[in-house]
Amino acid sequence: MEDATPTYRAAAEILTRGESHRVWSLIVTIFGDLARGPEDRISGTALSRLVGLMGIKPEAMRVALFRLRKDGWIDSQREGRGSLHLLTPFGRGQSAEASPRIYDRDRHFPDTWHLLISGSGEQTGRGQLESFLMTGDYLTIGTQVVMGPGPLPPDLRGLAGVETNRWSVPDWVQDQVCPPELMAQYRALEDDLVRIEAILAGAGDLPTLERVALRLLTVHSWRRILFRHPDLPGSFFPDGWPGEACRARFCSLMELLPTVSLPDLEAAAVIPESV
Amino acid sequence: MEDATPTYRAAAEILTRGESHRVWSLIVTIFGDLARGPEDRISGTALSRLVGLMGIKPEAMRVALFRLRKDGWIDSQREGRGSLHLLTPFGRGQSAEASPRIYDRDRHFPDTWHLLISGSGEQTGRGQLESFLMTGDYLTIGTQVVMGPGPLPPDLRGLAGVETNRWSVPDWVQDQVCPPELMAQYRALEDDLVRIEAILAGAGDLPTLERVALRLLTVHSWRRILFRHPDLPGSFFPDGWPGEACRARFCSLMELLPTVSLPDLEAAAVIPESV
Repeated sequence: MEDATPTYRAAAEILTRGESHRVWSLIVTIFGDLARGPEDRISGTALSRLVGLMGIKPEAMRVALFRLRKDGWIDSQREGRGSLHLLTPFGRGQSAEASPRIYDRDRHFPDTWHLLISGSGEQTGRGQLESFLMTGDYLTIGTQVVMGPGPLPPDLRGLAGVETNRWSVPDWVQDQVCPPELMAQYRALEDDLVRIEAILAGAGDLPTLERVALRLLTVHSWRRILFRHPDLPGSFFPDGWPGEACRARFCSLMELLPTVSLPDLEAAAVIPESV
Repeated sequence: MEDATPTYRAAAEILTRGESHRVWSLIVTIFGDLARGPEDRISGTALSRLVGLMGIKPEAMRVALFRLRKDGWIDSQREGRGSLHLLTPFGRGQSAEASPRIYDRDRHFPDTWHLLISGSGEQTGRGQLESFLMTGDYLTIGTQVVMGPGPLPPDLRGLAGVETNRWSVPDWVQDQVCPPELMAQYRALEDDLVRIEAILAGAGDLPTLERVALRLLTVHSWRRILFRHPDLPGSFFPDGWPGEACRARFCSLMELLPTVSLPDLEAAAVIPESV
């Protein structure tokens, strides 16, 4: 990061201070943003330069890639003296599923939702709730109820179920969906995005790699906060939740920091850029 | 009951054996069937003769009337040397509310139902569920959820709420709505109604008071079982629930045992009937 432009460093510093980004997760963000297609590959060289701009050491990247291969997210292929990395079909599926939630300017939620309900006694499906929760698609309400998008699934595994298109969400559910510390993180992210937009407004165009690295740091910060709660309409969040405001600012930054084609990325990665 | 016709005695015996009817509740049935209008009154004489046919002693009736007055169900007025008894506005309201559930040949349930949900922690409305349950309109599911007819009430008192018109009811909820012992009572009632219909089919017309007393015993037996569970569509009951069959037989008996006008009741009560 030492060689980067002052504009990049000022902006990147905002998104990398505090809690350090997990490299594993950052690489998932990179592939999800740049290389979601089945033919898409990123060279080790380009990947090193991008994560280098984010303050990550080559060894940390190698360890993360090893883990991602082991977890079935990433495949790596030898190519001459280097490597090419790509998402596995599993990794592409996960990225495709997460993508609308991250990038869509306007979120669309289904009209119909469903609740699955266990009893509080023996043989009333309490263990079955867990199996639905593991899909990550459900909001828990207390210990007996989960709520998920769309119509009732075909097999309720012994749970009671109802479909609904009208609900009322009390404070205690809103506070569970987005507790005060997550609200504070949302507010901090909104401030960060405002500051980055201001920095970019006062500066010229960034070199390609820096533009992409800053884009990826922005996506990553947004993605991290977004996936700390279930994917729910605004009425499930406390009053003053700045989620919609963050989304609008995030989308503006995505326009200010457009993505790059993979050939242009590779070209930028091998030729030292003129700053 | 000793003076009654053999037909009456055979039929009434079926409905009065086993668990004895509570007199308080039987008088509620009588007024709910015969005297639901604001101008309707039943004399002490007529009431004594009716409950006498049901095997209830005058002292027990007097105690029950005293209790019913104290509870705000019944008012009594002096009339010459006797009394006239009538439902209070409260009693009329309660009777009017229960009436469709008892007498309607085809039950109509709302399309929309609602669930009220508490959490499992502090300050998540657990106490508030109780206040809704006390209305008697709700099915409880476990300790966190109640389900009631119609749209969400305007004030949820801090509970989460959803509206629904599609649900799936597992065995354990069906068994809670109608446990095995209640299923057995339903089956026994169905048998009883079949036997009474057979007895009446082989006999001539009953004297007015006996016809009305037998009608009231039938209503009472049906009402007692009906109000042991919440008022819910058939899908909430276990497979083989004979609730619809009982309702059909009950309605047939109501036609075989038509009601009486209050003047005709009073006339029958003062004149010893020719059997």
